Amino acid sequence: MISKNRVKQIQSLQQKKFREQNKLFLVEGVKTVKELISLRPGAIEELFATEDFIRENGSLIQKNTVQCTQISERELGQISGLQTPNQVLAVCRYFEESDGSLDLQNQFSLYLDDIRDPGNFGTILRMADWFGISTVFCSPSSCELYNSKVIQATMGAFMRVNVVYTPLKNLIDGSKPLHVYGAVLNGKNVYKEKLGPGLIVIGNEANGIHEENLALIDCPLTIPSHSSNGTESLNAAMATSIIVSEFFRQLKV
Amino acid sequence: MISKNRVKQIQSLQQKKFREQNKLFLVEGVKTVKELISLRPGAIEELFATEDFIRENGSLIQKNTVQCTQISERELGQISGLQTPNQVLAVCRYFEESDGSLDLQNQFSLYLDDIRDPGNFGTILRMADWFGISTVFCSPSSCELYNSKVIQATMGAFMRVNVVYTPLKNLIDGSKPLHVYGAVLNGKNVYKEKLGPGLIVIGNEANGIHEENLALIDCPLTIPSHSSNGTESLNAAMATSIIVSEFFRQLKV
Repeated sequence: MISKNRVKQIQSLQQKKFREQNKLFLVEGVKTVKELISLRPGAIEELFATEDFIRENGSLIQKNTVQCTQISERELGQISGLQTPNQVLAVCRYFEESDGSLDLQNQFSLYLDDIRDPGNFGTILRMADWFGISTVFCSPSSCELYNSKVIQATMGAFMRVNVVYTPLKNLIDGSKPLHVYGAVLNGKNVYKEKLGPGLIVIGNEANGIHEENLALIDCPLTIPSHSSNGTESLNAAMATSIIVSEFFRQLKV
Repeated sequence: MISKNRVKQIQSLQQKKFREQNKLFLVEGVKTVKELISLRPGAIEELFATEDFIRENGSLIQKNTVQCTQISERELGQISGLQTPNQVLAVCRYFEESDGSLDLQNQFSLYLDDIRDPGNFGTILRMADWFGISTVFCSPSSCELYNSKVIQATMGAFMRVNVVYTPLKNLIDGSKPLHVYGAVLNGKNVYKEKLGPGLIVIGNEANGIHEENLALIDCPLTIPSHSSNGTESLNAAMATSIIVSEFFRQLKV
């Protein structure tokens, strides 16, 4: 059972304003929530689950001492943001934001300058997780990590990749000397450039990298186009994946 | 002015059933529609545009003898599928599906085996356009090209990339000998394999490549993961972009 008040409160967490006020967000989907219970049980404020979910995952829930309330499918439908609610919803506390800027010079990191689309942001985090990138830095204007669409699109990567919001200049100033790459339309051919550890800056979907951040880039990179008919752009997440892939090919294969 | 009946008819084109019945689909967005008028004027059944759009693009519309009806912003709001309607909407006839399988052996082509998400499908077409891939083949079960979300996500690439729906077996049988690559979880390292012209098969978002199509692949490829914590997958569109990028790096740079 779940009270009307609690339903309202959980529904309000679909909005950024109330997420930030309460420092709470929602996680849905059987696979992702099971992973959450294992990896971050301390972050779960309360789990709302159907009888089926509890029957199958009772020992996992108990072992990690997560507070769990059984609800009906109908009640789940009331608090879920999904078109097809699926057995369980977790109300979670915001994660601690760790610094992540230690030893930036010897690693390979990403900086998202004003990425706005939740789908793009989520799939970029999922890709970062695949390549073992431990921290993704973002401009303060970038998409919010706790947006439900982001959380969904990460397929669980939000638990494994550390996300840090900070101005690019602050990050670079604190980590000098740092090699700063940037994805632009008229840079050096990413396949021909010898790439090394450093930070790669990815720009906004419509406007690219901000003027003041462009000035901080020492190696602009471009994915050469073979289009014969004036295509102007790749999707930001696709471009990011191609550039990150090329770094890993050169550095780690 | 636009009649109530016409409004209804255009609204119905948001649904696949009515698109297929009428062989018509919708294109929105100033930039994309301007490109459509230039590249495919013959495909436009009727243009609905605000006074602003007509004032700025009158000569383009006339030069290409496109039928254009002026409507108010309010009327545009009624027929638009966008949250923020933008000056113009085109009702378009389905494109002729060209064969596209000529000389498949000496090119580099994509086959999408049951890609379902419109965003993934659209960004893959956009990426294909960037790399100059002229035809993208799809299984008959794949996402429909004329879905409005696909059209939006392609950012105009739907006009430049030829999309052909056909079973993989038919395509291969008609083009032997053909090198058939496939994106899988336990194949050869895509960065270390010597890649050549051929067809790359990309699987469904949840289930990968279908069993019967797996048997047709002679070179399975994998993007090596550097994740230390059990990440299972990349987004299908991201994986496609990385594999295509690696082919182009090896073949064209």
